[in-house]
Amino acid sequence: MAKSKFEYTRKFENNDSCLLNCFIVVRLDGRNFHRFSDSHEFEKPNDENALKLMNRCAEEVMKEFQDLILAYGQSDEYSFVFKRSTTLFNRRASKLMTNLASYFASSYVFYWSEYFKEKLQYPPTFDGRVVLYPTETNLKDYLSWRQADCHINNLYNTCFWKLVKIAGLSPEDAEKRLCGTVSGDKNEILFSEFNINYNNLPEMFRKGTVLLWEKAEKMVSKSKGDSTTVRVYPQVVMLHVDIIKDDFWESRPNLLI
Amino acid sequence: MAKSKFEYTRKFENNDSCLLNCFIVVRLDGRNFHRFSDSHEFEKPNDENALKLMNRCAEEVMKEFQDLILAYGQSDEYSFVFKRSTTLFNRRASKLMTNLASYFASSYVFYWSEYFKEKLQYPPTFDGRVVLYPTETNLKDYLSWRQADCHINNLYNTCFWKLVKIAGLSPEDAEKRLCGTVSGDKNEILFSEFNINYNNLPEMFRKGTVLLWEKAEKMVSKSKGDSTTVRVYPQVVMLHVDIIKDDFWESRPNLLI
Amino acid sequence: MAKSKFEYTRKFENNDSCLLNCFIVVRLDGRNFHRFSDSHEFEKPNDENALKLMNRCAEEVMKEFQDLILAYGQSDEYSFVFKRSTTLFNRRASKLMTNLASYFASSYVFYWSEYFKEKLQYPPTFDGRVVLYPTETNLKDYLSWRQADCHINNLYNTCFWKLVKIAGLSPEDAEKRLCGTVSGDKNEILFSEFNINYNNLPEMFRKGTVLLWEKAEKMVSKSKGDSTTVRVYPQVVMLHVDIIKDDFWESRPNLLI
Amino acid sequence: MAKSKFEYTRKFENNDSCLLNCFIVVRLDGRNFHRFSDSHEFEKPNDENALKLMNRCAEEVMKEFQDLILAYGQSDEYSFVFKRSTTLFNRRASKLMTNLASYFASSYVFYWSEYFKEKLQYPPTFDGRVVLYPTETNLKDYLSWRQADCHINNLYNTCFWKLVKIAGLSPEDAEKRLCGTVSGDKNEILFSEFNINYNNLPEMFRKGTVLLWEKAEKMVSKSKGDSTTVRVYPQVVMLHVDIIKDDFWESRPNLLI
Repeated sequence: MAKSKFEYTRKFENNDSCLLNCFIVVRLDGRNFHRFSDSHEFEKPNDENALKLMNRCAEEVMKEFQDLILAYGQSDEYSFVFKRSTTLFNRRASKLMTNLASYFASSYVFYWSEYFKEKLQYPPTFDGRVVLYPTETNLKDYLSWRQADCHINNLYNTCFWKLVKIAGLSPEDAEKRLCGTVSGDKNEILFSEFNINYNNLPEMFRKGTVLLWEKAEKMVSKSKGDSTTVRVYPQVVMLHVDIIKDDFWESRPNLLI
Repeated sequence: MAKSKFEYTRKFENNDSCLLNCFIVVRLDGRNFHRFSDSHEFEKPNDENALKLMNRCAEEVMKEFQDLILAYGQSDEYSFVFKRSTTLFNRRASKLMTNLASYFASSYVFYWSEYFKEKLQYPPTFDGRVVLYPTETNLKDYLSWRQADCHINNLYNTCFWKLVKIAGLSPEDAEKRLCGTVSGDKNEILFSEFNINYNNLPEMFRKGTVLLWEKAEKMVSKSKGDSTTVRVYPQVVMLHVDIIKDDFWESRPNLLI
Repeated sequence: MAKSKFEYTRKFENNDSCLLNCFIVVRLDGRNFHRFSDSHEFEKPNDENALKLMNRCAEEVMKEFQDLILAYGQSDEYSFVFKRSTTLFNRRASKLMTNLASYFASSYVFYWSEYFKEKLQYPPTFDGRVVLYPTETNLKDYLSWRQADCHINNLYNTCFWKLVKIAGLSPEDAEKRLCGTVSGDKNEILFSEFNINYNNLPEMFRKGTVLLWEKAEKMVSKSKGDSTTVRVYPQVVMLHVDIIKDDFWESRPNLLI
Repeated sequence: MAKSKFEYTRKFENNDSCLLNCFIVVRLDGRNFHRFSDSHEFEKPNDENALKLMNRCAEEVMKEFQDLILAYGQSDEYSFVFKRSTTLFNRRASKLMTNLASYFASSYVFYWSEYFKEKLQYPPTFDGRVVLYPTETNLKDYLSWRQADCHINNLYNTCFWKLVKIAGLSPEDAEKRLCGTVSGDKNEILFSEFNINYNNLPEMFRKGTVLLWEKAEKMVSKSKGDSTTVRVYPQVVMLHVDIIKDDFWESRPNLLI
């Protein structure tokens, strides 16, 4: 069997290593998740279990690929940030994004039943991309962009679904009603018409979810009956906080280093 | 909320559209599948159910992304061939490979229970890559390379596991025994020592699996009790045949056009 | 001197090898050649000497980089075609285009005085790009695109400058006059108003210039007074012919192989 | 003339824009300059006029492409640094490197006669590449790498040519003599055998050449006979200084911003 005769075709592969010393971000997005959330009757505008399942998958991804230093998720998307100096998969973009996308997607199915009683109708798809950021500022601005997007969409969607589900507007009329409004207007609609203070809604809905590694204490007992000792382990922690303001970064000076 | 202030970061995305008029191949490979197959006690050298699950996932991928004209799989890998003129995802490499990798992986979990009684231990990961082939000959040679690889590995593994499981050799001794042997030697070992004619082993093991679209007839009845009529539908068919020899291609002159 | 301490920076170079088995085209374009041709008072719409100098530079490029199989030039641009299998500079796009661009540009200055009596005012700049074509048809269509472009521009410019220089129209009026006209109209203007049969104009102006390697006979005499013998050498030949029609390619069946 | 029919081939061009917010470095290298310097009998190990011509070409390049903030040259190579935020040619790598390479090369021929009495034998070629650096440190380290390279090569070459030209060693013997020596050894050879203090050699030879923009005063008189006034203009200045140590950068805090 002339193996060598055909093996030349492997040379058609290109080398897509990411530029050194940049932050590598992999962003995953659910494909056709409008249809997916309809099929599975996700609650609007936010389905808590669906978000928790996304967070769980992201946490598993963080644990599996330990050069990840941060993840940020909202709606059906998740961004993963590798440390600047990572050499995982020789920084090959294709390897990085397919490993994350496939593990995230398989985890989604694997952990589904922990979050939903109803059966999963069909396997979900996530697309992924790699984006490079040369500086900390660029990276923070990227994450701020995603969190600002979360806020804008969530405020809009919260209003929209109140208008539809409580006020009984048709989707078209709700859309018209919100057309041209600014944040203040939407906050006012929520407050005056639905008695809702937007800022009191769950932070996971308003700010999305941040995952990062933090040292945490763990009680360890070597064998049954032993006295326990305290050990310090790095653990993935989950936060729903503002990452646009400097506070978040200033209180974690080593996060990006 | 200054959305625009941060939105500039989207411009850091690069455009990775594939060169026009080339065949786009996406190859997926199971990550750490040695460990995965041990954890799930896959039969050696070939686990029929594991292969059938791979084939099922590939079939679902073919149906979901209909610009795929061919897929070839063996062991824990699968190659998908898009038609030359596809404009799916504007031919963006990252979109193509992450969509296929994630859908394949989520399908693997989703359909697992149809092929295995035992529980899936953990979600699998598949890495992916995009390779471009400018000519039909290059593409056929690529597929021949993968099928030749299937043959070489399967012949070796078949011998190896017979020596270990039947002849009782240690893995090290089996490896030594096979070191330096050519195909003929291995065929001879199988025949004289284990009474096995390699060519009688299942074709799925020896040749891998080809998926392609073929027009098939379907019996259709519009409503219950109606007389049935025959309709012609494109369907994914599964073959375990030689794709290195010209016969395969000559009998399907329109496959790559 | 800590050389190694800084040498890591070489790893930031990316590998930009061209996909195998594609035709590599390098196209050079004069930068700001409107200004350049004004400064040097090139004749409008075609300066024969300027075109001959371009052709000379292209010929030198062909001789210097012998994996070039064809070149096509018109106006201030030149396209160079490498043979499909070239391994020159390991097919690195950056090396290919900068070598050609710089040698073309330095030749332009070097040979200037053979074509112009007037002094060169300042050194010219040429930008370059690499384009890959997977098939012969794509490559021929590329060259046809450039030759069609030559024809369209030359017909227009010929009319325009006749209207300005002979009929005395202002540039603006000449432009208005030609606005919306098709080829037939322009031929008619040339014929009826200026008594010019466009098809009788020099082919170099109408069709541009093709360079290719052909075997030619050479008379050789080893030393003075010796009888001469005929040797066959590959030589760059220069043609001003139609390369859109099939004739050109059919009469040279081995040109692209 | 069916222009549109062929125009599709323009879509085969790829977009090679450089990642935003990185320093773009274009390095040019003389191709086959061993042969070139032999043909033109350049003095060894340094030909002052040849270096001055290189510097002149680089200066012209700086003036032509004003987003260049720095250039560093030694031997037959020159590195050009664009400001981080440049949008020249939409940051397209191919445009940037071919414009610089071709203009440098054409300038080399154009200005040759200002530096050499002898005729230029043939036009030179320069290859080019683009390298991206995400941080100031990476960029400075790159430039330090090139200057360290200058030092190492120049010390070696100075010794080598003294041994050959003064001590009368054959090139092979000179090479053997220097094999395995460190900097200190070479300094010692120069001092003890040839009475040369390496540190007293011209700085252009030992440190290469830095070009940068600095504000300079110019005497201006609007018309003949007018009193002159002093105006401040940015001008390209030429330095032969250490750029590895921090002093250079600390005294020019705005250079890279």
